[in-house]
Amino acid sequence: MIDSYLFLGIALILLSTKAFSILFKRVHLPQVVGALAAGILLGPALFNVIQPSEAFSVLAELGVIFLLFSAGMETDFKQLRNSLKSSLLISALGVAAALGGGFAIASLFGKPPFESFLIGVIIASMSTSVTVEALQEIGKLKTKTGTAILGASLFDDIFVIVILAVVMGAGTNDVSIASIAMIMVRIALFFVVAILTGFGVNKLFNLMHKRIGSKGRFSIFALAYCFFMAFLAEQFGLADIIGAYIAGIAFCNTKCAEALETNTRTLSYMLFTPIFLANIGLQASFAGLTGSMILFTALFAVVAILSKVLGCGLGAKICKFTNKESLQVGTGMIARGEVSFIVVNKAIIAGFLGVQLFPSVIAVVLITVLIAPMLLKWAYADRRAAQSPFADNMH
Amino acid sequence: MIDSYLFLGIALILLSTKAFSILFKRVHLPQVVGALAAGILLGPALFNVIQPSEAFSVLAELGVIFLLFSAGMETDFKQLRNSLKSSLLISALGVAAALGGGFAIASLFGKPPFESFLIGVIIASMSTSVTVEALQEIGKLKTKTGTAILGASLFDDIFVIVILAVVMGAGTNDVSIASIAMIMVRIALFFVVAILTGFGVNKLFNLMHKRIGSKGRFSIFALAYCFFMAFLAEQFGLADIIGAYIAGIAFCNTKCAEALETNTRTLSYMLFTPIFLANIGLQASFAGLTGSMILFTALFAVVAILSKVLGCGLGAKICKFTNKESLQVGTGMIARGEVSFIVVNKAIIAGFLGVQLFPSVIAVVLITVLIAPMLLKWAYADRRAAQSPFADNMH
Repeated sequence: MIDSYLFLGIALILLSTKAFSILFKRVHLPQVVGALAAGILLGPALFNVIQPSEAFSVLAELGVIFLLFSAGMETDFKQLRNSLKSSLLISALGVAAALGGGFAIASLFGKPPFESFLIGVIIASMSTSVTVEALQEIGKLKTKTGTAILGASLFDDIFVIVILAVVMGAGTNDVSIASIAMIMVRIALFFVVAILTGFGVNKLFNLMHKRIGSKGRFSIFALAYCFFMAFLAEQFGLADIIGAYIAGIAFCNTKCAEALETNTRTLSYMLFTPIFLANIGLQASFAGLTGSMILFTALFAVVAILSKVLGCGLGAKICKFTNKESLQVGTGMIARGEVSFIVVNKAIIAGFLGVQLFPSVIAVVLITVLIAPMLLKWAYADRRAAQSPFADNMH
Repeated sequence: MIDSYLFLGIALILLSTKAFSILFKRVHLPQVVGALAAGILLGPALFNVIQPSEAFSVLAELGVIFLLFSAGMETDFKQLRNSLKSSLLISALGVAAALGGGFAIASLFGKPPFESFLIGVIIASMSTSVTVEALQEIGKLKTKTGTAILGASLFDDIFVIVILAVVMGAGTNDVSIASIAMIMVRIALFFVVAILTGFGVNKLFNLMHKRIGSKGRFSIFALAYCFFMAFLAEQFGLADIIGAYIAGIAFCNTKCAEALETNTRTLSYMLFTPIFLANIGLQASFAGLTGSMILFTALFAVVAILSKVLGCGLGAKICKFTNKESLQVGTGMIARGEVSFIVVNKAIIAGFLGVQLFPSVIAVVLITVLIAPMLLKWAYADRRAAQSPFADNMH
């Protein structure tokens, strides 16, 4: 039997995320932030109307998959291919800066080197999902910088998976070149499978479209492929959303992409994205954050933000992006999420980090997730248009 | 962490339910039955590729809610009001016939009277969800008979809730007129709240539509109302789907109904209905069905089908439906589902029925659910059109 409070929870989430989105839009703040705020308000951190539950986690995770699947479909494939090198450099410099910054701040608070390095790994990887939603909201997902950000987020996850495996292995003294090579081979293998099936699926859908025209069933088969790739990515040691994103890319220039995009958007908009965003807020809990931990958390958040803005921004600049574009790329990499939780969880379970660090990580994720959409909106704002008094009436 | 096998499960369900639906349509069988068959094939009863899980149950339950919400929106309110009396009689005679039939068959197999009566209660109430999907598929949900069936299904649930409370109370010797009255008062109270908020919501949405036109956010707020009513229905002792259906009726003649219907349909079609239908098949397990239990199950299924066709058909006939329409109404009440499981579960937990009855109930639910859509398609078939050799080429 399903707990009927789940229905009440969904009703409250839909109502409040939409109401807050509208409110935030009125005062020129990103709607994403409104939805996140609604979740914090409803959750244990404030009014405690809704408790996090397995059911919400499942729906939120499906929401992330639909979001990344959409993002994949909207990707300009040529642009992605051309920006792969820039993405790699942007990601590498951002990860390095975050690792160094995290290490420095932890050392400053007296942590031993190994622990400090692990704390750096926590903030090394950005979170794609909130960024995608924020970029979609301001209509910049398909731009050159939007594509570079998405590409870099792929590399971020790969870097962190490999680094984490090395660090955890070193901590338990069972790291070997063979085991690291094995991880890299599995990742490479996944991308080979993804590229091969992607081209196959792309050809197949274009052929079917030519033969029998546009049909609703295409969307269902496409979604099945998306879920299969999400499963496969996890089987190969990657994140499910990487699979969903790459599955989306397979459809990005098919004839059925438009209907598929509309259908996936409806799923996201009507139910899954509100639950996914509110669910982040539901995780918020600041119990246990006192004294020096608050100072540490504040500095940790600043380092998390600056490391990506400067590191990724520098990477973009080296790759001949303009100053403005470099700033957009840097701010686009600020948001942290799932991966931070995965890293801290694994490190706590292995006994390398204390559980008292957890509220700090929650706070840093929340701060970056709330700030990133605002900075993105500002970084992408057209300064000239903003000077026009009519600019706002055009929407 | 979400189990990544959930993604594989969803991928397989989407792929197989759609593939089977297409296949079944080719051989002129209802697509619903194809989707159910896919679930049986994937589940523990046959190939055991997917196990039933909490996550699938949640998604399936949401699917049922969207289905009934759609059905409510498509309801012709005037027709429903006019057919309420017929619906009451159709339901009453169907429930009585099923109770009598179940009692007779159980007595025949040597069960004591109290147990036999409970076995009758198991098949007393029909399942709306599969019937709605089957009627939608053949485009007959909005007909006079379709409306009568939906109305009767409401009364079915109410009858069974009250009867079950009386029987269970009698079994544990704590039944009183006051406790029965209390249940009826709560049910009545729910309908008062539903009708009042329904009219309020209806007015509000029409007013908002006049003021600010059609907006996506209307659909989200409408969905929030739907989930709230599903919650409320359960709080008042009714089923969640009754709340969803009545919430749908509140929008059935608003200006935003069309967009709302399209959005809800996309949710159902793309993800939730396939999972809901496959999930029924996943529950299938015939372990423990041997010897006289198989004979009992077969007769139990026959009684379950005939009692509704004859009982409800007679009810319709008395209310001046034509012979053909009465047959349509009767076959529309055949499908059993959730309520049967609820009754048998409660009776087993209370110690009134043995757990060995469970596979029989699963089998009866499956048989009715597979047969009902086929009989419905046949009962609604236009015999004259079917004689035309060109009839099939027109779609």
